[in-house]
Amino acid sequence: MSYNTFGRLFRFTTWGESHGPAIGCTIDGVPPLLSLDEADIQQYLNERKPGQSKYTTQRQEPDAVKILSGVFEGKTTGTPIQLMIENVDQRSKDYGDIARSYRPGHADFTYNAKYGIRDYRGGGRSSARETASRVAAGAVARKILGDGITLKAGMVQMGHHIIERERLDWNATRNNPLFCPDPVAAKHWASELDKIRKSGSSVGAIIEVVADGVPAGWGAPVYGKLDADLASAMMSINAAKGVEIGAGMGAAALTGEENADQMRPGIKKSDGADGPPEFLSNNAGGILGGISTGQQIVARFSVKPTSSILTPRMSITEDGEATDVVTKGRHDPCVGIRAVPIAEAMMAIVLADHMMLHRAQCG
Amino acid sequence: MSYNTFGRLFRFTTWGESHGPAIGCTIDGVPPLLSLDEADIQQYLNERKPGQSKYTTQRQEPDAVKILSGVFEGKTTGTPIQLMIENVDQRSKDYGDIARSYRPGHADFTYNAKYGIRDYRGGGRSSARETASRVAAGAVARKILGDGITLKAGMVQMGHHIIERERLDWNATRNNPLFCPDPVAAKHWASELDKIRKSGSSVGAIIEVVADGVPAGWGAPVYGKLDADLASAMMSINAAKGVEIGAGMGAAALTGEENADQMRPGIKKSDGADGPPEFLSNNAGGILGGISTGQQIVARFSVKPTSSILTPRMSITEDGEATDVVTKGRHDPCVGIRAVPIAEAMMAIVLADHMMLHRAQCG
Amino acid sequence: MSYNTFGRLFRFTTWGESHGPAIGCTIDGVPPLLSLDEADIQQYLNERKPGQSKYTTQRQEPDAVKILSGVFEGKTTGTPIQLMIENVDQRSKDYGDIARSYRPGHADFTYNAKYGIRDYRGGGRSSARETASRVAAGAVARKILGDGITLKAGMVQMGHHIIERERLDWNATRNNPLFCPDPVAAKHWASELDKIRKSGSSVGAIIEVVADGVPAGWGAPVYGKLDADLASAMMSINAAKGVEIGAGMGAAALTGEENADQMRPGIKKSDGADGPPEFLSNNAGGILGGISTGQQIVARFSVKPTSSILTPRMSITEDGEATDVVTKGRHDPCVGIRAVPIAEAMMAIVLADHMMLHRAQCG
Amino acid sequence: MSYNTFGRLFRFTTWGESHGPAIGCTIDGVPPLLSLDEADIQQYLNERKPGQSKYTTQRQEPDAVKILSGVFEGKTTGTPIQLMIENVDQRSKDYGDIARSYRPGHADFTYNAKYGIRDYRGGGRSSARETASRVAAGAVARKILGDGITLKAGMVQMGHHIIERERLDWNATRNNPLFCPDPVAAKHWASELDKIRKSGSSVGAIIEVVADGVPAGWGAPVYGKLDADLASAMMSINAAKGVEIGAGMGAAALTGEENADQMRPGIKKSDGADGPPEFLSNNAGGILGGISTGQQIVARFSVKPTSSILTPRMSITEDGEATDVVTKGRHDPCVGIRAVPIAEAMMAIVLADHMMLHRAQCG
Repeated sequence: MSYNTFGRLFRFTTWGESHGPAIGCTIDGVPPLLSLDEADIQQYLNERKPGQSKYTTQRQEPDAVKILSGVFEGKTTGTPIQLMIENVDQRSKDYGDIARSYRPGHADFTYNAKYGIRDYRGGGRSSARETASRVAAGAVARKILGDGITLKAGMVQMGHHIIERERLDWNATRNNPLFCPDPVAAKHWASELDKIRKSGSSVGAIIEVVADGVPAGWGAPVYGKLDADLASAMMSINAAKGVEIGAGMGAAALTGEENADQMRPGIKKSDGADGPPEFLSNNAGGILGGISTGQQIVARFSVKPTSSILTPRMSITEDGEATDVVTKGRHDPCVGIRAVPIAEAMMAIVLADHMMLHRAQCG
Repeated sequence: MSYNTFGRLFRFTTWGESHGPAIGCTIDGVPPLLSLDEADIQQYLNERKPGQSKYTTQRQEPDAVKILSGVFEGKTTGTPIQLMIENVDQRSKDYGDIARSYRPGHADFTYNAKYGIRDYRGGGRSSARETASRVAAGAVARKILGDGITLKAGMVQMGHHIIERERLDWNATRNNPLFCPDPVAAKHWASELDKIRKSGSSVGAIIEVVADGVPAGWGAPVYGKLDADLASAMMSINAAKGVEIGAGMGAAALTGEENADQMRPGIKKSDGADGPPEFLSNNAGGILGGISTGQQIVARFSVKPTSSILTPRMSITEDGEATDVVTKGRHDPCVGIRAVPIAEAMMAIVLADHMMLHRAQCG
Repeated sequence: MSYNTFGRLFRFTTWGESHGPAIGCTIDGVPPLLSLDEADIQQYLNERKPGQSKYTTQRQEPDAVKILSGVFEGKTTGTPIQLMIENVDQRSKDYGDIARSYRPGHADFTYNAKYGIRDYRGGGRSSARETASRVAAGAVARKILGDGITLKAGMVQMGHHIIERERLDWNATRNNPLFCPDPVAAKHWASELDKIRKSGSSVGAIIEVVADGVPAGWGAPVYGKLDADLASAMMSINAAKGVEIGAGMGAAALTGEENADQMRPGIKKSDGADGPPEFLSNNAGGILGGISTGQQIVARFSVKPTSSILTPRMSITEDGEATDVVTKGRHDPCVGIRAVPIAEAMMAIVLADHMMLHRAQCG
Repeated sequence: MSYNTFGRLFRFTTWGESHGPAIGCTIDGVPPLLSLDEADIQQYLNERKPGQSKYTTQRQEPDAVKILSGVFEGKTTGTPIQLMIENVDQRSKDYGDIARSYRPGHADFTYNAKYGIRDYRGGGRSSARETASRVAAGAVARKILGDGITLKAGMVQMGHHIIERERLDWNATRNNPLFCPDPVAAKHWASELDKIRKSGSSVGAIIEVVADGVPAGWGAPVYGKLDADLASAMMSINAAKGVEIGAGMGAAALTGEENADQMRPGIKKSDGADGPPEFLSNNAGGILGGISTGQQIVARFSVKPTSSILTPRMSITEDGEATDVVTKGRHDPCVGIRAVPIAEAMMAIVLADHMMLHRAQCG
């Protein structure tokens, strides 16, 4: 793992700026002979792409992916897969007036503090456009995982509003523009978000992502823990400020009796062998000691409200002068919406990596 | 970063089991010419070591560290530093009866699922004893950071009890056995924890760790983000289930106006140069876009209640038979207490690594 | 370091096949604020590109590089630099008849043994086209090294012919199509190689690459040795079969008295300080104990003769049937010629990486 | 791979100085359930240990290895294996008089140039004692490879003397103190080396190491090449100055017709399936395009003569003053002898790593 690379055996390196000619990623370590074409990737990019509803930025990007290497006659070859997405709708004039001011809550100041230079057009490298590469890499990771592992994600909190767990329906997430797994909340939140959007404000959110079908035994005991890698993956998503596995921060308020998920013998298989054990609860979120239990893997992360708002905020210029900043560009009133496909992608990537790590060591 | 190694340039690899002859770590990448002796490390180990109050496991371990390499005439040489801590009070008979059962909430089942073998004595590698190596490595990381960077940590929530922020006093943490930075809460929590201990139960906690003096510019923009590395570091600590930076999970409920930390010009230095900008709040927890802002770095993580309790819990044996498990060994009623020095150590380690990474790229 | 990535802090990942739409590389870890444009890179690509003389493959490739990211207003930004070179003259029909046979001496058989699939058009990923990415990355590495470090390389042996050391003139290498640093040998070898080319045969070579201006102290003592990294770098070049540092394989025949380079005090600087010590010889090739001595760094490597020849060779098909293979495509009679700019690039890359590693640890 | 760590999935980190209390290594990534005890490792350490004949240093070290972690009830557990070897016969007084002078051909000067400090007792970290850790790690790597892969190594050149290939007998290497696979040469060389030893001089050597039983398909195409990793491994051995695979540096003098190893269909298996192809020669040394061919893997490397000799050599002190250095300590007249078990170990380590890498990606 390094600056712009994620993963150990399934490794992808992303490149490109918001307003450069293109963005993309190089994926290394992919097993050979997986069927893969651009449509396999495009379906997930389409979910993330901007401009699909009034709740996301109105930038118009087809986000059309091209496979430049690593696939031959419809199959992966085991060599690096280069995926490229050309930038089309850059409109960099939107950003011209803030080129020399630091937008509060954005990475403008810290980039300059680190590098002494930044591509200020659309946030450059810190733009959410980078996440298109993650979604593309996630589509390849899903191919490695196969059909036995399914991923679902959705927005479970928007601002102060939280879904009703009894209404949770992962199939509902693709039926509303907010990717909310509670159909009733989805409607209510939509009108709420419309008001926020019109007022030029923004709101935070919590995303939940789950994986079913992961066998017991993936992960590692101390530093390559499955949960530590998920924490790193989710926290690396733009605007993320907190990550939870299973009971999460709420585990602090539990007693030992409440927390430890009890186990019962699994259902015998038809050949008489023991089936996987049955757990009576899942406070662990499917991970104990850094290793999967065979239960559903459950992760959540918060995203802060986008800092690009119409209300003037106090800031300073690159020269250290006081100024007020108003962000007039096209922005998302709630970045949590578009974080949903990204969350699924990052979960897929971590799992594919650990599947290969487990196979390497334990055969 | 790999299975048992943490870090990129400041890298340490821990080894050893709870009931083996010794535990320790190999630290590679340490700059030369830092003064270092065993006492520098021992002071931090003493804070973490068990058996110091009735609130932690009664296992008696001196946790005396030996420097086996990498230091010559009181100075680091730039070569690997091997730190070894001998295990003294193993009493493995405590564990004999659960050698073939899976303790709920522990890593017993997952270790067997992964490896087909586990050192069941005291949890083997998944024991909290491993964290002594982290504390030792953290002491070396502090030498790299120097005196300009100070670290403080404490237990800010125990069960349902949360400190009063207006009473927050980091200096109080070393004056009570709970490492609680709120002196009033500390007393109340102590009597509460005493009841929990006597009843054979346990409780979770939240630890907060802060770093002052980190300059703006440390970190990296996309996957080697300072916050992503902190998330990985904290989530890798035994029993951790959630990690927060700054506003954390609570960022979801903020609006854009509330969240983005406004900036004012810093105080001019005596030579007329601009001082670092002043932030009017710190929802960012000192990190924007993965890079430090120059503010206080603020991280929090939850730890679940220890799963070793006296109440019988339903489980299964290695042969898949139903059984009840009661854990009679010596254990902590609240592992959050001993997590405090570990949290400081992991923060120091991540910062030292990023200090060197920043120097490498940006000179 | 991984499958398709080279380097620790200066890291580049290459991608692309000989007959795909494009090849390229992603370079991560580059310091910010270096001036860089396409011309800086193109000049080195022009040296390597095919079809420039009758001694190299007649494939016509402009090898025009595009910078897709990581450079803003003529300066590096510290973020990943994506370099892309489109493939133009693929003529894949040349390869059709050998798509199902294994060319002796090529990677055809081993790719299929590993992956069960290969892009047989022009060798796919094992084609020498991959080395264009190395040359491009090397151009960026040179920017990091600055003008104080100069690199020179040339072909010092072709078949049985070896240059006369007393005629060694590094400035001569760019004045003859063989990159030979002995102007007299260059003429003789050219006519010799012409005969080899016309007969459809090929011949091996030895390349020497030297670096001047490297200060004492770069490298690492045990596994990140400067010489071990150079060995890995040179052996990773297509067709390489041996690598030498300084006295190389010939060190075996030396005595201790002959081998150890004696030292004398360096010339005092104008301010009275000691200058770097003077060595009376350089059997070490500028590296002792894995760390640079301040002398010239000297590496050599052999490349085997290209295996694509007109004489029929016994082989087998993918189905295990006996067959004879004749390679009719466009090929180099001596791949050593085009290996010269690649050798310089790989030397620059290893040095830039170690410069940053040294700065990280030793400040 | 980093400063003191070697390998990707089979990773070992060595630590310890020649005259410190102990040396050792931490091995991470070892598969579980391999039978392993100290005797498995000790047998190889005994081959390398000093003081066994008059041809190696007279330092008396039992080199008794202790397994401190990672093995439970005679089986590996999949967790880090810590191996420790205590230093016994340090006699550091031998070195006192050269503590402030740089021995020509040694790493004294470069260590000081890099770190500004060095443990001058016995060369500290650059001592050949570090290689005991490699031999220990190699013993574990052999367990991963299993009995189907056999390793052999021997000294094939000493000074100007080269073995006769027709007398090559790998079984002879353990029957003579020079590890020479040519029994006739072994006798002659022994008396020659005796003279060199008595005269206080030293001589270089070439070591050859081969592996049988490696299946086709291990390795990687571009930077994780099997031959590049072997080059790095062999060049990292103390005193190594050149590395060859198969035809090695001699490949330069071959023509395409001579070099490319022709292939014939393999012998049908009893079930009618194709056997592995038969190669008519092995100039490739068992590796094409970075991937194993199924033939014998053949590597060679040169070691320079030890620089510790009785003849005074010109040098400088740490203060930059001219001085003469004579090394009076206990040293090897030909370090090539003890390099033989080290070479086998490094070959085993690289192969075990690639076995696991191949399994991870290709199943």
